[in-house]
Amino acid sequence: MSRIPAGLWESLIAVQVYGANTGVGKTVFSTLLGAHFSQRSGNTKWKVQYIKPVSTGPLDEADDAYVRRFTAQPVTTLFKFKDPVSPHLAALGAKHLVSLAEQIDEHLNHTLFAGLEKHAKASWGHGIRAIAIVETAGGVLSPGPSGTPQADIYRPMRLPTILVGDSRLGGIASTISAAESLIMRGYDIDAVVCFDDKSKYGNAAYLKTYFEKMNIATFDVPWIPNLEGIGQKEEVDKMRQYYTTESRAGHTGNIATRIIDRHFKRLTEMNEMASRTKNIIWHPFTQHKHIEKVDDVLVFDSAYGDYFQIKHTPNSHQQNGLKDNISHLYPAFDGSASWWTQGLGHGNPKLALEAAYAAGRYGHVMFAGATHEPALTLAERLLKGLKNPRLTKVFYTDNGSTATEVGIKMGLRASCKRYGWDAAKDDVGVLALKGAYQGDTIGAMDASEPSVFNQKVDWYRGRGWWFDYPTFKMRQGRWVVEPPVGMEEDFGPEQQFEHMDGIFNLESRGRSSRYESYIEKTLDRLVKDQGRKFGALIMEPVILGAGGMIFVDPLFQQSLVRIVRGYNFSPKFEVVPPQGTNVHTWTGLPVMFDEVFTGLYRLGRFSSGSFINVHPDISVHAKLLTGGLLPLSATTASESIFQAFWGNEKSDALLHGHSYTAHPIGCHVANVSLQTMADLSSSPEWERYEKDWRNSYPDEMSRSSSLDVVKEQDGKERGTWSVWSHEFVLHLSQHTSVDYVNALGSVLAVSLKDGSGSGYSSSAAIGLRDALLYRASNTKVQIHSRVLGNVIYLMASMTIKPEHLADVEATFTEKLDMVSR
Amino acid sequence: MSRIPAGLWESLIAVQVYGANTGVGKTVFSTLLGAHFSQRSGNTKWKVQYIKPVSTGPLDEADDAYVRRFTAQPVTTLFKFKDPVSPHLAALGAKHLVSLAEQIDEHLNHTLFAGLEKHAKASWGHGIRAIAIVETAGGVLSPGPSGTPQADIYRPMRLPTILVGDSRLGGIASTISAAESLIMRGYDIDAVVCFDDKSKYGNAAYLKTYFEKMNIATFDVPWIPNLEGIGQKEEVDKMRQYYTTESRAGHTGNIATRIIDRHFKRLTEMNEMASRTKNIIWHPFTQHKHIEKVDDVLVFDSAYGDYFQIKHTPNSHQQNGLKDNISHLYPAFDGSASWWTQGLGHGNPKLALEAAYAAGRYGHVMFAGATHEPALTLAERLLKGLKNPRLTKVFYTDNGSTATEVGIKMGLRASCKRYGWDAAKDDVGVLALKGAYQGDTIGAMDASEPSVFNQKVDWYRGRGWWFDYPTFKMRQGRWVVEPPVGMEEDFGPEQQFEHMDGIFNLESRGRSSRYESYIEKTLDRLVKDQGRKFGALIMEPVILGAGGMIFVDPLFQQSLVRIVRGYNFSPKFEVVPPQGTNVHTWTGLPVMFDEVFTGLYRLGRFSSGSFINVHPDISVHAKLLTGGLLPLSATTASESIFQAFWGNEKSDALLHGHSYTAHPIGCHVANVSLQTMADLSSSPEWERYEKDWRNSYPDEMSRSSSLDVVKEQDGKERGTWSVWSHEFVLHLSQHTSVDYVNALGSVLAVSLKDGSGSGYSSSAAIGLRDALLYRASNTKVQIHSRVLGNVIYLMASMTIKPEHLADVEATFTEKLDMVSR
Repeated sequence: MSRIPAGLWESLIAVQVYGANTGVGKTVFSTLLGAHFSQRSGNTKWKVQYIKPVSTGPLDEADDAYVRRFTAQPVTTLFKFKDPVSPHLAALGAKHLVSLAEQIDEHLNHTLFAGLEKHAKASWGHGIRAIAIVETAGGVLSPGPSGTPQADIYRPMRLPTILVGDSRLGGIASTISAAESLIMRGYDIDAVVCFDDKSKYGNAAYLKTYFEKMNIATFDVPWIPNLEGIGQKEEVDKMRQYYTTESRAGHTGNIATRIIDRHFKRLTEMNEMASRTKNIIWHPFTQHKHIEKVDDVLVFDSAYGDYFQIKHTPNSHQQNGLKDNISHLYPAFDGSASWWTQGLGHGNPKLALEAAYAAGRYGHVMFAGATHEPALTLAERLLKGLKNPRLTKVFYTDNGSTATEVGIKMGLRASCKRYGWDAAKDDVGVLALKGAYQGDTIGAMDASEPSVFNQKVDWYRGRGWWFDYPTFKMRQGRWVVEPPVGMEEDFGPEQQFEHMDGIFNLESRGRSSRYESYIEKTLDRLVKDQGRKFGALIMEPVILGAGGMIFVDPLFQQSLVRIVRGYNFSPKFEVVPPQGTNVHTWTGLPVMFDEVFTGLYRLGRFSSGSFINVHPDISVHAKLLTGGLLPLSATTASESIFQAFWGNEKSDALLHGHSYTAHPIGCHVANVSLQTMADLSSSPEWERYEKDWRNSYPDEMSRSSSLDVVKEQDGKERGTWSVWSHEFVLHLSQHTSVDYVNALGSVLAVSLKDGSGSGYSSSAAIGLRDALLYRASNTKVQIHSRVLGNVIYLMASMTIKPEHLADVEATFTEKLDMVSR
Repeated sequence: MSRIPAGLWESLIAVQVYGANTGVGKTVFSTLLGAHFSQRSGNTKWKVQYIKPVSTGPLDEADDAYVRRFTAQPVTTLFKFKDPVSPHLAALGAKHLVSLAEQIDEHLNHTLFAGLEKHAKASWGHGIRAIAIVETAGGVLSPGPSGTPQADIYRPMRLPTILVGDSRLGGIASTISAAESLIMRGYDIDAVVCFDDKSKYGNAAYLKTYFEKMNIATFDVPWIPNLEGIGQKEEVDKMRQYYTTESRAGHTGNIATRIIDRHFKRLTEMNEMASRTKNIIWHPFTQHKHIEKVDDVLVFDSAYGDYFQIKHTPNSHQQNGLKDNISHLYPAFDGSASWWTQGLGHGNPKLALEAAYAAGRYGHVMFAGATHEPALTLAERLLKGLKNPRLTKVFYTDNGSTATEVGIKMGLRASCKRYGWDAAKDDVGVLALKGAYQGDTIGAMDASEPSVFNQKVDWYRGRGWWFDYPTFKMRQGRWVVEPPVGMEEDFGPEQQFEHMDGIFNLESRGRSSRYESYIEKTLDRLVKDQGRKFGALIMEPVILGAGGMIFVDPLFQQSLVRIVRGYNFSPKFEVVPPQGTNVHTWTGLPVMFDEVFTGLYRLGRFSSGSFINVHPDISVHAKLLTGGLLPLSATTASESIFQAFWGNEKSDALLHGHSYTAHPIGCHVANVSLQTMADLSSSPEWERYEKDWRNSYPDEMSRSSSLDVVKEQDGKERGTWSVWSHEFVLHLSQHTSVDYVNALGSVLAVSLKDGSGSGYSSSAAIGLRDALLYRASNTKVQIHSRVLGNVIYLMASMTIKPEHLADVEATFTEKLDMVSR
C-alpha cells in the first residue's frame, strides 16, 4: 500500500508495457516505441527513457542492454537478477524488497526530470517532452520480487497501459484474460498491440474485433524477423533493419499518437472536471453558495489503499503554481474513511474480483419469495457475529437510512400492536438521545430532534423525546465522564477514570441510581403527566456520529435500556411480556441500536452494542458491511418483533422492499469483507494496537478480571483500544488548542477549543482541515478530513499499516501546532 | 443466451476442465482423472464419460482417441475440425454454429443417462454414479466455433470447474488471470491442478499459496514423462505406465475426493437453503404467514440472460418426484425482470468486468465536495438523454425511494420558499394520482394516498390530494381510453382509437376542455374553498407501476401539468415567475416525474416523460439505471429548484447524502449500461419490434406526420411499440379470461377478469402465475412472474432474443388457456 502520487505529468508521458504472457514481444515493442519517439516528426522533440523495473536472466542478454543498443536512449534497470526465473524466486534471500512503485516514482520525478528542468516552462506542441516506457516482466500477474503480482505492485501509479498481445496458439485467451486482470485492477488500457505473424491463428484479427467492443484500440505490428540459424552480427543487423523500418512505419506512429492523444485527453479532462462538476452536480450535504472557486471541488483520479489520488490545485502545495515536472496528482489520506464506509482499502483487487463473481453468477435477482446463497450466508453471519440471542431475522435494504426506517416501522408496529394504539391518530414517538441522527429520509429524520439538519425539511416532524446524557473523553491526559452543561444536579459531578477501560467496566461501576432516577423521573413526566406515547427506544451505541462524534457514557445508555424495558408505557398494560413468550420478548419498548457507523469492527468489535452489554431487539447495519465498496444495509430483529407482522392479511406484513433488496453483489462482497475483518481482528497488528493501549494502564490494574470483555470469534478477549497510538491521543489531549479527545477502534475525534478563552473561533476545525490537505510539501502526508462543528475526526481502514498511521499522527500534530501559532 | 438447465444432477457429477493456456496438460489431466474414477475404490462404482465439445487438429491425434486409449472409457467429441487452429477459424464456413452448451446438456441428459437408467434409484454411497469430464479447448477464453469465448458459451450450465495451471515460465500470471476470467463469469473453481515439473519456476508452490488465500484448493500432479526421441510404442507404454501409477496415487485421489465433496456440499446446501431461509430471512413485501411450505421459497442457484436457475421442487415439474437423472435446477424466464430492474441480462460478463474496473480504480470514494469521472459523466449523460431544457443538476442517492424523498424535499422547499409557507406549521401536501406509489420510505409513502401498502405504517400520514384519471388499454382488439368508473360526467365517455399511437398523438387530440375543467374545478375546491396548500405535482409518466400497472391517458397527465403550471396556489402571489427568471423557471407548482420504473428505455425511450410532451422540473431515475446490476438513483432538477437551496446558511442547503452517494461502481456501470441500451435502441431488433407494431396500423395512417415522436440519440423517430408482438397482444385482448391488455416497450400487463361474470375470482392472476412457473414439462419455457391484484405482467430485458420472446408468448397463451378451462 504505497503512498506515492499516481503518475500524470505535464511534460512526461509514462506508459507501462505489459505482456499477455512472457515471450510475447514486450521488449521488441518497447524498443520499437522508444525508437519511434526518439525520431518522431513534429514540433515536439521527445526524450525517451526506458525503464525496466526488474530484470532476470544473464546480464548480457538483459532487456536494457538490448534496448540501449537499438534506441541509443537512456535505459534504467532498477533490479537485476541473474537467474532467468520469476523475480520472486530470483529475489529470494535478497534484502531489497523495497516498493518498486516508489522506486519508479523516484526515478521519474528526480533522475529523469533533471535533464528536462531547463525546458520545464516550454509549452506543449513545440518544446521538449519525455516519454518513459516502463516495461514490466513476464505476464500481467507475474510476481514481483516481493511475491506480489506486479499489476498490484504498480497499481499506486496507475500508469496508462499498453498490453502486448500473444500471437501464438492460445494467445486469444491469454490476451483477453490478461486485459481483464488489468481492467479489474482499475487500469486504463491505452492500446493492445498484436504482433501479426500472418499465421493461421489470426489472433490479431480476432482481438481487434473483440477489444473494439470494449472500446480498447488494437494495433497490428509486423512480426519480428526470423532469427533462427543466423549469427549474432547478422541478427543485430536484421533487427536494426526491422527497428529502422518499423519505427518509421505508420502503425507505430499510430500507436504513439494514440498514447499522446490519450495523455492529452486525460490531462484536459482532469483540468475541466471541477468546472463541469460545478455546473451539473448537486452535491450531498453541501451549501453550493459556499463553493466559491472551481478549485473547491476536489477531483479524484482514483484511489488506492487509504489514499485518494487528487488533482493538484494551486493551493494544494507550497510551490508557486504547479510545475511541469511534478505529477498533477497527489495522494491524500482518506481521513473520513470516505464518510465512514472504508474498511479494506480503496481499489482492493480482492473485493473487485468478488464483486465481479457475484455479478457474473447472478447480476441482480429479485428477493421477494426467493433466496440465494450470498444473502442467506450474510444473514447467518450477521446474526452469529452479533451474539445477541434475541435476534433471529434479517431484513435487507440499501443504506443506513432505509434500514433505520425499517427498524422504526418494526418497533412502532410492535408497540402499537401490543398497546392497542392507532398511530394514524395517536401521536406515537420514539425515545432517543439529543443530537442523534439516524439518516436522511424523512422517517429517519423524524426520529431526530429538531436541528440544523432538518429545520428546513418541510415534511420533517420531530416525533419523540430526546434525552440529555453524560459524555466521556480524555482531557488533559485524564479520562472523564462529564454531565451535560448545567445538569450536575441530575447526572452528578465529573467522574474521573484511570483509563478508558474503566469507563466501560460497567460491572465494576455498578448501577447508577442517579442516572436511573433521572430517566424514570423524565419518563414519568412524559408518560404519566403528559400522557405521551412512545413506540421505540433508538440509540447509536457508544458514539453519536453525525451528531458530532459524541462519546456517550456507556453506563447511561445501559441504564436507559434497563429503565425503558421495565417501564410501563401504557396504563392499560402490566410491564410483563405477553403470555406464551420467552425471555427474548421485548418489554417496555422495543430497543433498536443503530450500529450503522459504530458496528462491524469500526470500534474494534463486531457489535458496538456489546460495549454496553445490552441486547437490543432490533439492530441496524450498513457502511462497513461491504468493506467500503457499495451500498447495502441490514436490519435485524427479534422473534417478538417479527411476530407483530404475522397475520392473515398481507397488509399486516412489513410492506417494504427496494428493487435491489439483498442484491447478490453487495451480499457476497459483505461476506468476504466480514470474513476478512474477522481475520484481521485476530491478527498480530490488532494485537499490537491493543497492547499499546493496555500498556498505558496503571500497573496495579488487573485488566482481564475487571473488564467487561467480549469474546471475539477467534476466542480473543478484547477491551477498549484504538489504532491511534495511546501516546498520540495523550499528547493531543494536552495540546493547548484541544478541548478533549476520543479514540476507539479506528476512530479519532479531536474537539478543538473555540471562542474566547483560546483565541479560537468555531472555524478552528475548518482551519486545521484545510491545513491538513494543503501546504504539505514538507510534511509526510497530506490528509483529507471532515469536520463536525469544532470536532475534527480521523478514521482509517482496517488494513492500514502502522507506519502510515504514524505518519498521519506526526503530520496531524505538526499541522495542529502550525495552526495554533 | 441459452435456456438450458444449469448442470446439477443427483447421480452425475459433470466437471469442466479448463486450461490456463493451450498445451498445459488438460488432456493428460482429464485422462488421469477418468482413469482414476474408472477404478476408484469405495462403495460407489463410477461410470466415466469424457466429453470434448470441440476438437481441432488431425483426427488421429485427437484428444478423444487419446483418452479412449488410456481409459478404455466412452469418449464423445461433439465437433471435430481437422485444422489445429482456434475453433472459430476451423469452423469458418461450417454450418453447425449450434449452441454448444445445449449440445452438452442434451448429451448428458439423454445419451449418458440411458446407461444409468436402471440404477436411477440407487442411493448415494453404494450405487453407480457417473462422472462426466468436459474438456474445453485451448485457454479459458479461447473462442468456440461461434467466435464467442468458450467460458461464455458454457456459462449457462455453470458446471463446477477444474483449472489446469500452466507450469511454464510465465505460467503464474496466465494461471491467475485465467482463474480471474472464470471467477468474474460466475464459475466456482473446485480445484486448480498444477503439473509439478520440479523445475526452477516453482509455479505450483506459488499458486498454492496464492489460491489458498482465495479459498481455492490447489493440487500438484507429477509431471508428464519426457517423451522426446522415443518411438510411438514406447511412448504409449510410458504413458500407460504414467496413468497406471498416477491414477492410483494419493494426489489424484484427493482431487477426485475434492470434486465429489464439493458436489455433495452443493447438493446439500441447495436442499437446505429454503428452510435456512425460512428460519432467518425477513422477506420484502411478504406476509410470512402465507409462506406455508418450505418449498414456497424459491432457491436461486444463479441466473443468466433472462433466466433464473431455480432448484426443482416437487411442484416444479410434472414428474412424480425429481428423478436422479434430471438436473436439480431449471431455468425460468425472469418475467418480472427482477422487480423491473433487469435490462442487460443476468450474469452479463461485460457489466461484471466494468463493475470490477470501478472497484479496482476507486472502490468507493466520498462525494461531498469532490468529484470523479463516472459520476460526472453519468450526470451529463442523464441530462443529455432527457432532452429537457429545464434540467441542469443531478443529485445522487441509492434507490427510487430515496431519490423520490430528495425530489419531494426539492419541490416542497421551492414552493414553500416562494410562497412563504412554514411547512413546520402549515400542512403542505402534494398533488398526485390515485394509486400512485413512490417508494417505501415514510416520506415517499406520505406522497401516496392511503392504501393497503401504508395503512399499518404507524408514521404514515398521507399528505396531499390524489386525482382520478382516465386510463387506456386494449380490450377486445380495440384501443380505448376509459373514464374512471362512474365518472363519465367528469371525464366523458369511452374514447376509441385505431391504434396505440393514436392515444399518444397529443397534438392531433388537442386540448381536452373536459379534463382541464375537471382539474381546475378540483383545484378550486381544494385551494380556494378549503384553503389547502400544495407544494409539488408528482406523477409516474404513462404507467403507475406498483399501483397495479395502470396505463394513464397521456392527455390527462399533460392537462394536469398544464393546469397546475398556470394555477395560482397562493392567494398572495400572481402566477408569474419571480423577477429575474426565465422560461425554465417553475410556475404554479414544481412538477416532478417519477421515471423510476418507466424511464431509461423500459418503455422504449430514454425518458418516459417524453410520451406526454412535458418537461418536468424534477425527475427521478433508478432501477434500469445500472442495467439491472446494483442500486443507484438520481434526482435531476432545474436551476430554479436548485436556487431554492442557495443561501448563506448551510441549513439552507439540501442536507441529504447517503454514505455511498454516487458510488463509482454504480455510476460507471450505469454509463456502460446506458450506452449499451442507446446502441440497442438503434439496433435492427428494435427496428423489427417497431415495424411489427407499425404494420398493425390501418393503411391510411400516415404515422410519421401525425404522431408526437421523439428523436432518439441515433436520430431515429420512434412511436409507441413493444417487444411483445402485436399479434400476441391482440390475441390476449380477445381472450375470454382477459379483461384488457397493455403493452409498451418491454412491459406487458394483462388484466384478468374477476368476480361473478366469468367464473374468475381475484385469485385468477395467482393461479396463472403458479401455472406459468410449474407443470411446464410439455411447454417451451417455465416463467417466473409477479402479479398485482388481477394484473399479471411480464417484462423482458433489453437484450432478449425474439425467439425466446416467441416461446414466452406461446407458453403464456397455452397456460392462460389451461387455467381458463
